[in-house]
Amino acid sequence: VSGTDGRISPFEGLNPTAPAVILVYPQLGENIGMAARAMLNCGLSDLRLVQPRDGWPSEKARRASAGADQVLEDAGLFETVSDAIHDLDLIYAASTRQRSMTKPVFTPPAAASAMRERNLPGTGIMFGNEAMGLNNDHLALADAMVSVPLNEEFSSLNLAQAVLITAYEWFKAADATPEIQMPMTHTRPANKEELMGLFEHLERDLDAGGFFHIREKRPIMVRNLRNLLQRAKLTEQEVRTLRGVISGLVNYRPPED
Amino acid sequence: VSGTDGRISPFEGLNPTAPAVILVYPQLGENIGMAARAMLNCGLSDLRLVQPRDGWPSEKARRASAGADQVLEDAGLFETVSDAIHDLDLIYAASTRQRSMTKPVFTPPAAASAMRERNLPGTGIMFGNEAMGLNNDHLALADAMVSVPLNEEFSSLNLAQAVLITAYEWFKAADATPEIQMPMTHTRPANKEELMGLFEHLERDLDAGGFFHIREKRPIMVRNLRNLLQRAKLTEQEVRTLRGVISGLVNYRPPED
Repeated sequence: VSGTDGRISPFEGLNPTAPAVILVYPQLGENIGMAARAMLNCGLSDLRLVQPRDGWPSEKARRASAGADQVLEDAGLFETVSDAIHDLDLIYAASTRQRSMTKPVFTPPAAASAMRERNLPGTGIMFGNEAMGLNNDHLALADAMVSVPLNEEFSSLNLAQAVLITAYEWFKAADATPEIQMPMTHTRPANKEELMGLFEHLERDLDAGGFFHIREKRPIMVRNLRNLLQRAKLTEQEVRTLRGVISGLVNYRPPED
Repeated sequence: VSGTDGRISPFEGLNPTAPAVILVYPQLGENIGMAARAMLNCGLSDLRLVQPRDGWPSEKARRASAGADQVLEDAGLFETVSDAIHDLDLIYAASTRQRSMTKPVFTPPAAASAMRERNLPGTGIMFGNEAMGLNNDHLALADAMVSVPLNEEFSSLNLAQAVLITAYEWFKAADATPEIQMPMTHTRPANKEELMGLFEHLERDLDAGGFFHIREKRPIMVRNLRNLLQRAKLTEQEVRTLRGVISGLVNYRPPED
């Protein structure tokens, strides 16, 4: 839905099966704001807060959200975890600590895949606060845990960073961006005829300049030059630029004093 | 290397081929600190700063690093991007904006795979600052770009969040954590004999309680109960608990007034 100022809403096109994010007893407004920003970066908008320590609304949260104000304004405020999740039916609990509970522990991409495959509203991801994480009573309300594999010697994630990773994996699980793209604006890859023109131009002028004075080395030197130019994957524009560079160097005259 | 206080250093076992992180003109100490924390979370330790705006060292950075002090203390401080990357040979530039440059654009997992496959020191990932990102002269120093696919209506990532995602993908590319684990402490999955004991115990006591009073519905009700109990993937301990629960209910006596 477009806003009244005519800008496209950041909620435009958000997926109704996107999981809710439940922050349990969050402490710092900055972290709530950064979590909201990370959510919206990844197409999530349903934020639920259980007893934020420093009150609500929070100006610090708003500033840290860097424009994700709407996520904060729409955030639900709850007294208990049970209230916050009452309308949901599948809860993942973010937890880094090893627990004695017999409950499946998903990696973030595995949780994301499971949510995408389920393809239903009603999912939530629950995060504990900065100091304590989730307690065992909260974990007992969850269907599964999600745990980010990290450097075991330093594995404590910032709250907003934990939200980001799970949200990012959810976004990525349905994202079709090619792994590697090569942008081509106003140009195209040089074809082999153009490349050959460059090679022969360079080699002819190097012959004229005496560069290949050890004749028996000429073939290997030519191959080396062709290989490195080939490796650069030149565009048609760049081939023309390089031919201009060769001409520029051939026209070199020592500066007059 | 263990610290003098006997604790294991968070740098213990870090991979020497881990990429350096270069922050170009970073503004907020908090973001530098959170980036350091995210790096160490993911096994990176080589942080390089080009002209941090608010001076260096930074108390705000230290506080936000949440224990990744050593990354900050070891951080290199440079006047120019060229100085900061002089000893590296493969640079990825983090960039969200579409550019007119003809330079490959990797997703974070694709960049991570490429770095892992290369398996050599000398890689760096360069990040622009909070306000401007990297300029075109900085991008011209990079071998490739890395861009995080995000909600196109709200794609501006916090600096430390961008560092986290690239670092996390690098960590994950060599991480062997199973996608889904089921922790079993002091127990094991119930075997089918134990499960059958539970089913029969429950059905016998329900028969005695008159629960199956519509005889022709008994088979389907039994199957439903067996299915839901089966789906819970009970442990041996939990089977014993549930049998205790059945006995507890059978022993029910109305409270005396």
